[in-house]
Amino acid sequence: MAHVGGKLSVELRAPIDTQRDLSIAYTPGVAQVSRAIDDKAELVNQYTWTQRLVAVVSDGSAVLGLGDIGPRASLPVMEGKSALFRSFAGLNSIPIVLDTKDPDEIVETLIRLRPSFGAVNLEDISAPRCFEIERRVIEALDCPVMHDDQHGTAIVVLAALKGAMALQGRDLRDLKVVISGAGAAGVACANILEHAGVSDVVVLDSKGIVSFHRDDLNEIKQELAERTNPRSLSGGAAEALDGADVFLGVSAGQIAEAAIASMSENAIVFALSNPDPEIHPEVAAKYAAVVATGRSDFPNQINNVLAFPGVFAGALDAGARRITERMKLAAAEAIFSVVSDDLRADKIVPSPLDDRVAPAVAKAVAAAAKAEGVA
Amino acid sequence: MAHVGGKLSVELRAPIDTQRDLSIAYTPGVAQVSRAIDDKAELVNQYTWTQRLVAVVSDGSAVLGLGDIGPRASLPVMEGKSALFRSFAGLNSIPIVLDTKDPDEIVETLIRLRPSFGAVNLEDISAPRCFEIERRVIEALDCPVMHDDQHGTAIVVLAALKGAMALQGRDLRDLKVVISGAGAAGVACANILEHAGVSDVVVLDSKGIVSFHRDDLNEIKQELAERTNPRSLSGGAAEALDGADVFLGVSAGQIAEAAIASMSENAIVFALSNPDPEIHPEVAAKYAAVVATGRSDFPNQINNVLAFPGVFAGALDAGARRITERMKLAAAEAIFSVVSDDLRADKIVPSPLDDRVAPAVAKAVAAAAKAEGVA
Repeated sequence: MAHVGGKLSVELRAPIDTQRDLSIAYTPGVAQVSRAIDDKAELVNQYTWTQRLVAVVSDGSAVLGLGDIGPRASLPVMEGKSALFRSFAGLNSIPIVLDTKDPDEIVETLIRLRPSFGAVNLEDISAPRCFEIERRVIEALDCPVMHDDQHGTAIVVLAALKGAMALQGRDLRDLKVVISGAGAAGVACANILEHAGVSDVVVLDSKGIVSFHRDDLNEIKQELAERTNPRSLSGGAAEALDGADVFLGVSAGQIAEAAIASMSENAIVFALSNPDPEIHPEVAAKYAAVVATGRSDFPNQINNVLAFPGVFAGALDAGARRITERMKLAAAEAIFSVVSDDLRADKIVPSPLDDRVAPAVAKAVAAAAKAEGVA
Repeated sequence: MAHVGGKLSVELRAPIDTQRDLSIAYTPGVAQVSRAIDDKAELVNQYTWTQRLVAVVSDGSAVLGLGDIGPRASLPVMEGKSALFRSFAGLNSIPIVLDTKDPDEIVETLIRLRPSFGAVNLEDISAPRCFEIERRVIEALDCPVMHDDQHGTAIVVLAALKGAMALQGRDLRDLKVVISGAGAAGVACANILEHAGVSDVVVLDSKGIVSFHRDDLNEIKQELAERTNPRSLSGGAAEALDGADVFLGVSAGQIAEAAIASMSENAIVFALSNPDPEIHPEVAAKYAAVVATGRSDFPNQINNVLAFPGVFAGALDAGARRITERMKLAAAEAIFSVVSDDLRADKIVPSPLDDRVAPAVAKAVAAAAKAEGVA
């Protein structure tokens, strides 16, 4: 079985076979290196593994479709994530699963652990806690931090939308977009689309359209209500999708075929819920010009692995202290650029295994970091 | 330069080259494994890397001879330690350096991190804090925990003393032992020698013999005063060493040649301070029958690497929840057993590179754990 013993190992970069090897790897040789860092703190980036080390951090509160299974049961997912960092971007990565769900304790723990790594990929932390935790960890740590369930998804969605737009010869700014789901991914997608110039976004949660008329919204959804739904729609999926250009599903809910049928001509449907898309892609294709899912067994797989390895590699390469909106937009553009000369309705994003993607993303993200002065 | 980029890398145990590999390593395949652990918690040992993963944890407060250089500058040492776990015992190991010296915070942080690893090697934490921290971490965590500066050193010292005794045809129980240094290593050596049956131990700190007559002792030294110095000696090194059989130096202090000259016939001198032994081994050899140091450029190197890889491997192999005195004694006996048929005055311990040692120690420690019922 592929998972026995876990998916990772820690290996030596140079063998320890002789007395001399031992003297270099440990005492007395290592003392020189420690003394050098003690004299000049920046040398820690040069003489330790931290500059290429991403901690994948989770409390196991929102794991895949499994929900709150806790830190131990979430560990295989975090090991898998660390494996992808190595495989796609050549980064070192260690899973850190925390036996606490308290935001104060999570933030405090990461502050104490800070010297142990170079960047933090927050993973599978439930909404709305994930928003506060990410914000506070970013404020507290002087290194790249990103909650991948939010921004990894948002970056790849934007890349795919760029692909669909280029294929159809349309402009993002003219789109009416409906997002089903106001959790981690939904909120981040609404944000990145706004930053990319989309002005008409309507978000649905389980109760219907998120709007300032509602009195049952938490703080995050109130903010969303202020920035979205410019036509002040009310109602549910049927009202939102009538005449919409893009349906973006990032929830576990299903969507009625009739609602998809009511979308505009050349509609775009991203039904990303896993393992069961919000609408079956073959049904969606009866009405939509472009269909994408989160699944590998249908065309146009929207997979975070297109984004996060390159985003962290680029941020670390540049010595960036933060991952900014501009760096995320650059990542989306880079993913799109890999397929921009070869677009088809069933190929608006690169394959998750396309080894051109991570280097392109890393380069674009590093350049954006430098241009913005966060490096 | 051997240390650029650090000494470790995280690698995949199976490549991710195909869509199928990706589906197994990450979603959707990994969900099955997480669900299995969620159903049956013990499966975490089978399906993750933690069962073979030692966290090397430090606050950087007492690093080699460098002192309190903090977590960042200590990291190369911790990476080196992790490298030795891999190289000598085939264990995974990650350095965790903490940006706090507060014992409460260190213990609390390790409790929160507990699901991330299978064992904790505490490293380079200053005395007397190290005693409290180790005790509290052992109490708090249901996994093997050992402060190597204490017990790794003590185990190898005991092994070497067994070698010297066998060579000379003498019995440990008849020895008068003087330990110079009442820090982490000194206290642990006093303890293990007592457990091994040595009844006459005198400990020196920078003020002289640790005895209940003194009123300047901290809690740890008060305990030591109650259990050592059976002849109620007072004074300093000269008084302690007069007629003693064994000198064990685990401090940075020097010892006068005259004091060594006053030891009994067939004296044994372990001058373990690094890089400068308490007395030069060639000077000591004028008076002593057996001389050992901590250095690789003299015979009889007392090196912790003879102990800790096998101790942790054995404890993890056995599924032990603790590392007991009996397991430490078994480790010392196992190290001794590797050279017991081939003892010479300049070979009372195996070479640190002897690849028979770690498996022998692991086997003995696992057997002791099972016999004692901590597995």
